[in-house]
This record gives sequence, C-alpha cells and structure tokens, in this order.
Amino acid sequence: MRELTQPQLLALFALASDLQSGRCRAVRALEDVVVLTAFFEPSTRTRLSFESAAHRLGAAVLSVPDGRVSSVRKGESLADTGVMLNSYADIVVLRHPSDTALDEIRNTRLTVPLINGGNGCEEHPTQAMADWYALLKRCAHLHDADAPPEQRISLGVVGTPRRMRALRSFLLMGALHFPHILRDVTVVSEDPRPLDAELDNAFRDALLPVRCTSDLRRHVGSFDVVYQNSLTLVGTEYEVFDAAFRIDGDTPLKPHALVMHPLARLGELGADLDDTPHNLYFSQADGAVFIRQALLLAVAGRLDRVRWHEPEELG
Amino acid sequence: MRELTQPQLLALFALASDLQSGRCRAVRALEDVVVLTAFFEPSTRTRLSFESAAHRLGAAVLSVPDGRVSSVRKGESLADTGVMLNSYADIVVLRHPSDTALDEIRNTRLTVPLINGGNGCEEHPTQAMADWYALLKRCAHLHDADAPPEQRISLGVVGTPRRMRALRSFLLMGALHFPHILRDVTVVSEDPRPLDAELDNAFRDALLPVRCTSDLRRHVGSFDVVYQNSLTLVGTEYEVFDAAFRIDGDTPLKPHALVMHPLARLGELGADLDDTPHNLYFSQADGAVFIRQALLLAVAGRLDRVRWHEPEELG
Amino acid sequence: MRELTQPQLLALFALASDLQSGRCRAVRALEDVVVLTAFFEPSTRTRLSFESAAHRLGAAVLSVPDGRVSSVRKGESLADTGVMLNSYADIVVLRHPSDTALDEIRNTRLTVPLINGGNGCEEHPTQAMADWYALLKRCAHLHDADAPPEQRISLGVVGTPRRMRALRSFLLMGALHFPHILRDVTVVSEDPRPLDAELDNAFRDALLPVRCTSDLRRHVGSFDVVYQNSLTLVGTEYEVFDAAFRIDGDTPLKPHALVMHPLARLGELGADLDDTPHNLYFSQADGAVFIRQALLLAVAGRLDRVRWHEPEELG
Repeated sequence: MRELTQPQLLALFALASDLQSGRCRAVRALEDVVVLTAFFEPSTRTRLSFESAAHRLGAAVLSVPDGRVSSVRKGESLADTGVMLNSYADIVVLRHPSDTALDEIRNTRLTVPLINGGNGCEEHPTQAMADWYALLKRCAHLHDADAPPEQRISLGVVGTPRRMRALRSFLLMGALHFPHILRDVTVVSEDPRPLDAELDNAFRDALLPVRCTSDLRRHVGSFDVVYQNSLTLVGTEYEVFDAAFRIDGDTPLKPHALVMHPLARLGELGADLDDTPHNLYFSQADGAVFIRQALLLAVAGRLDRVRWHEPEELG
Repeated sequence: MRELTQPQLLALFALASDLQSGRCRAVRALEDVVVLTAFFEPSTRTRLSFESAAHRLGAAVLSVPDGRVSSVRKGESLADTGVMLNSYADIVVLRHPSDTALDEIRNTRLTVPLINGGNGCEEHPTQAMADWYALLKRCAHLHDADAPPEQRISLGVVGTPRRMRALRSFLLMGALHFPHILRDVTVVSEDPRPLDAELDNAFRDALLPVRCTSDLRRHVGSFDVVYQNSLTLVGTEYEVFDAAFRIDGDTPLKPHALVMHPLARLGELGADLDDTPHNLYFSQADGAVFIRQALLLAVAGRLDRVRWHEPEELG
Repeated sequence: MRELTQPQLLALFALASDLQSGRCRAVRALEDVVVLTAFFEPSTRTRLSFESAAHRLGAAVLSVPDGRVSSVRKGESLADTGVMLNSYADIVVLRHPSDTALDEIRNTRLTVPLINGGNGCEEHPTQAMADWYALLKRCAHLHDADAPPEQRISLGVVGTPRRMRALRSFLLMGALHFPHILRDVTVVSEDPRPLDAELDNAFRDALLPVRCTSDLRRHVGSFDVVYQNSLTLVGTEYEVFDAAFRIDGDTPLKPHALVMHPLARLGELGADLDDTPHNLYFSQADGAVFIRQALLLAVAGRLDRVRWHEPEELG
C-alpha cells in the first residue's frame, strides 16, 4: 500500500483503462514468464482474477489453490518457502492468513517479485486498486486540480476496517493516495472502535475528518459513496452484521450515491440495486482483471511490450 | 440436449472424427481464448477431458477443480457467479450438483458461452455426444436412408435413467436425435419406475417402443447394444446394483453385441470384456477429447481456424 | 532407477547444467505437448517443480493436485486409469502412495511415457537425479578417471532408507551408477536394520562398504558428505528422529563437509548452516527444475529442439 506512489497508481489505472477499452493490447507480453499463485488461504475469485490476467498476457500459470495442505502448513519456515518459490516462478502472488507472512517471506532469500494477494487482516492492495480504479473512473472530474472542494466525496463505509482487509485497504489507499477527492469519512460498524492505529494516523496525516457510528439509517443519506463490507470471512466462518446494516433498494440513498462492494455478497447487499445507477460493484469486479494485468506488466518490467493501436486502426 | 439439432450433432461428430484421425488440425485455433472449467462437483475425468481438449487447441485454461470450497457454496447467488465468470474467461464449462443450476446461471448476466459439464441428475450432454459419436462411428451403415429397418438397433440399458445422468442423457439424445437407428429400448433396473416424464415423452414422440424390466439375464441376449451404467455417484457415495446386473465374459451376449459404459467402472463391468470385440467403452473414452475439441471450436466460433490436410499431404 | 544408464544420467546432468547456466535454451521445445501431473499423494514441491519445468519448455500442463479425491481412489483399477491417461496427455508424471502402482499401471494399456514422481516407499528417481546432479557438480574432479582413490567421498546418511524414499533413491542411484566416487557409506538411523534387500545387494554388487549405526555424533566428523533425511511423511503424519540426529551449526562437521537435504525441513536441519559453505541443499533445490526440464526433453524426444548459444552471443 505504501510501496506505490499516487502517480504510479494513476499510471497503472490509465494502463488498465486502455487495456479494458481495447485501446492497447499486450497479448504476448509475458509469454516466457511463469506466474505462481500461492494461496495459503483459498480464494477462488482473487486467484482466478490473477490467473486470468496472467493468461491474457500470455504468461504460464502455476497454481497452489490450497496451500494449507502443503508442507508450509506442516511447519516449514517461510524462509525455506522463499527459496522454493525462486526456483519455480518469475512472479509470485501470495495470499496468506497471517498478517506478518508477507514481511517474513520478503526478508528471506526470495528474489522474484512478490505481489500481495491478501494477508491476514492487514492488506489486500490489488482489491483496493480495483476499487479506486472503478471509483476514479466514475468520478474523473474530481481529479482535476481545479475541481471545487464542495464536489468532494462524502464517503461512508459499512464494516469493521481493522478486521476486514478489503475495507481496510480501500480506506488506507484513500487516505494515503487520494485524500484530495474526499471530504469526510464515516465508518458505520457494530464495533465501537472499528479503526486501528495505522488507519487513525493515515486519516490524521491526510487531514481527513473521520466519524464512527453504528447508525447506518441516520447517516446513509449523506453519503456520496458507500462501501458495503459488513460481511467478512474470519477463518473459515463468515461474520455478518445485523440486518440493520443491510443496503438495498429500500435504503434512503442519495439520488446519485454510488454503492461499492468487493463481492461475493450474501444478504448484506440487495440484488435490487443491481440494475440501478447506484451499482458500482459490478464495475469493481469487471475492472479487477485489468488492474491485475497492468500490475503484472509493471512488475515483470514488460510495459514496453504493450501495443497501442494507431488512431486510424480504431476508426 | 435440445439446443443442438441432429445435423449440428452430426457435423460435430464429423469434425471430431477428422481431428481424431489427423485429417485436420486446429493446434492454435483458440490461442487467445481462456476456457474456465468450474466444477462445483469434482470430476477428474470430465475436467481433464475438457482441459486437455482446450490445451490441444492452444487455449489457456483456468481451473476450479473443487468449487465446493468457493464462495458459491457459502451462499453466493448463481447470478453473482455469472458476473464473476464473465470477467475471467471466454468460455465456461460448468458442472454443478444442482439440477437447476444451469438454467439459473443462464438467466443472469453471464454473457460468455456456457457448456454443461453435467448438472445434477439432469444431463451430461458432452458425455452423451461422446457416446453417440462412438456408437455411430461403429454403426455408420445404419445412418443410410436406405438401411433396412431390420438392421436397426435393439438397445438395452442397465441402470436407472432418471437418477443416472450419463444414461439419462444417452437415452434422451437417442430419442430426440437418433431414433431412426433404434428398433426398441429395454431399460433394465432395480427401480420399477426407472424413467421420468421427459424421457417417457421423448420416447413416445419418437415412436420408440420402451420396455422396463429387472431381469437382465432374460433379455440381454436380444440386445445389439447394451449400455451398462448400474453404478452411479449419488452425492459422495456410489450406488451399485446387485451382482445380477453385472456384465462380463459370462453374460450371454449376442455374438456381435456392443457393450458401452461411461467409465470409471467398479465391479459392474468385467475387465474380461476389454479385449473382445464387444468393447465399445474404450472407444467412448478415446473419442471424448475430440468431441470436446469440436464443441469448443464451434462454441468459440473458430471453425474457420481448422486446417484440413491436402490429399497429397496425407499420401 | 535402473532404466537409465550412467552415461544417460551424465548426459541429462550436462543438459541440465547448460539449461541452468543459460548456455542453451529450449523455450518452445515442447510447445505442442501436454504434460499431466497426476499426484495421487499430494506434494506441492514436486508437482510445482515438474509443472514449472514443463512450462519453461512451452508445454501445456494438466494438473491433478490431489488424486485421492478422484475415481481411482474410489476403487477404479489402475488399468482403467491408464486408458484414461492416454487420452489426455503426451507425458504423465505419476506420484502414488503405493509401492507397486507404477508397475501395475505400466503393465496396462498406458502408451504414453510415464515418469515416476515418487511411489510409496520405493523410489523418487527425479529427486535422486537432482541430488546427484548437485553433488557431482560440486565434486566434478572426482569424475576424472585419474582422480586418486583417497579423494573419494566418505558418505553419511541420516534416516531409514528402507522407509524414506528420497534417501533410498539417493543411495540406490549412487550404488548403481556412481560407486566409483564413493569410498564408504555410513547409515545413521534409529532403526537397527535401516536397509532392505535391494539396497544391500546394490552395495554388495558395487563393492561398497556399508556400516549402520545409531551414533551420529561419533561418526559425523568423518563424513565428506552427509545427507540428512531423518524426517519423513508417513501417510499424512511426519515421523521425526530424536534431537540427537539433528544437524546444525553445532554439529562437529568436517571443515569441507557438504550437507544435503531434500527439503522441506523442520527441526532436523538447522537454518544456521544456510549461509555456510556446508550448504548443498539449496543447490539441490535450485537444480531440480533443470533436471526435470532435461528429463522431459529426453522423454518427449525433443532434444533436437534445444538451441545452444554461439560463443560470440555469450561474449
């Protein structure tokens, strides 16, 4: 989350947008590259999204869909895992249930680039990238240096950021890299202390006012954007908020409010919003593969293999 | 089963035959296509057969070998799954334990082509295609419009079609698309009512006489073709018929009778038939990958990428 | 282990070395080949190593990461499995918990080449190849016909070869193919009879003196090479030797002794040896993918597709 700068993120978003619209192609850009998805915590969506992105670039894909059954779980150190991964792949996408796994494995002999596919309750940076990509695409005007401050976004999030990594990453990326398009942040949670020190500090450093509440009904009408993440997988069980935190067609949203969600969903987000202009969550899902393509291209050092169409070709 | 017409099926069989014999090649026909095998009910054979077919055509393959562990099982709607699959693949092969899953997912936002890899007790159409491909190849003469009616096949099947999807699909495809090569059908089952309404109607519409019995021994000597499927996986357990339904070297088969089986088998089909001319089941297995290649080519709209050898090349 | 001759092994090692150093390339050598890794006993490392090797050569890879859930486990005969595998792949890598599975499946209709990825307690020949490749690379001088006998290696192994397939295969390959670089062998084990008849005979035929002991401390100072394998997976549980068999920075090793280990490790091998010249185990791990590339090239009959760089290109 802190390794990339705002300009780097925006450059990746621009590349993702060009890939998504077909303005550029990178079909064989990674054709001699092996990408390994090592998921020590299973996640079909994130794994398939990375693997699809890699395939779209012509990479070969090695897959560990459920690393819990591997020797790592049986007590092997992450240092040894790092040595092993070097031999097999050129880029490793790692998901791990432990908050510290990523740092541990990075401080070892692992020499190939490592992409965080979600670690414990910490971060899920490519999800955050897909989320901000979708949001900034829809609110491109706010990026303008001359955009009037009163147009800035009043952001509401539903969930417990310190325990829900998608939401936590979305907020952290916002506070660190995109605070200029936010007016204020409201965290709606059953948990009276839903933030952690890193988030608190990031909001303070960004001079972003933050409010915590458990009353969705009272505040939801003021949100320009509401990120619903009141469902989360803890270990192998889902934790779901009370029905009062549900967002659906009966929720008194602002007329132009955008609703975000990392999917998959259960009852916390109504399908009756799917065909309304509030729905930004399908855009989040659609863009994710392209964000991951852009990231893989950059990490592999293959941006020079991207081919832009000449204007006449598009005609 | 009802989406393809008889001429379309025969065209696919002809293409499969040319691929199998090497008369044509399609090595890179799908080289920029991503095929996703989403198996919400595990099946090593069917999955590998589709994946091998896709690889033989140069496609990239994304694999969900055991979707029971994915978010779908945890309550996600099939509508949301459809949105997800759109992002990841160009063609989806779906196997699902529910009879209705396929219709549900088809009525959603899923826009990429969907191939049924087996749904509940309903249908397993590519298995039926492989079965009829093998049978028609062996009985090509029956296809002739001038073939004398007395040469038509007296077909026996062992199993309970309404609960065994391979057998059910074989019969349904026969009644719908190939009734002209059948003289009559005998269903041998422990179950006194082995058919269901759709099968009953299909046989009636095809004017095909059907008889149900539990006495294999008594009728087996009259079958030109006998399809053994008295073993089936129900949930995670196998259901096996009594030993009286076993077919092996001691069964009083007609001299030229053909024995079919979808494999894998346990005791219900004797290995002592493997090296006899009765054995059609290895042909069913051998042809399945080519049938799936033909189907993938058609579904991807890439039939124009198939290259036939010039006659002189074959010489 | 007995199918390859010493000259064939050395030719594979030479090819692996050239691939590892970049002196030659074989990036698309297997581009129309499908390699199936069928692991009826899960092993992330061995599977990924083979799959990475196949991808590096441009092959397509079909994967059965956990064949225990497949129909084979449910009672299908290995003969039928052989028929199935023929249809799907051009080369099969098989790992199986049964000692005899490989012979059984080889005596069937399986016609595609079969590579043993580890069978029961019997053999793990590609691990042995990676081990001897790493060792001979480090001790190249011993290969010389003129090398003085007193330079030969005094080899110690820690573990129970008759139950630990990596160690068993390392010793068997040594006795069968590389006895001329060994002076003597010491087997350190908790088990008073750690060898089996095949190993006994191989040592005797090679005129190699073998000693068995349970006292590591007493003998370790005499070993030029010590292979640590006192940990093994039996079924789904690890068996570990007593702490007295641990090798680490406190072990009184010879100054130039080399320590080998097939990895993964738990406590039996100290990480404090990692940054010392004793460490040969990381070389074993690094070389394994290249050995498997060389083997796949040979098995596929594609050695003619390897391209050596011209001397000026290297400059």
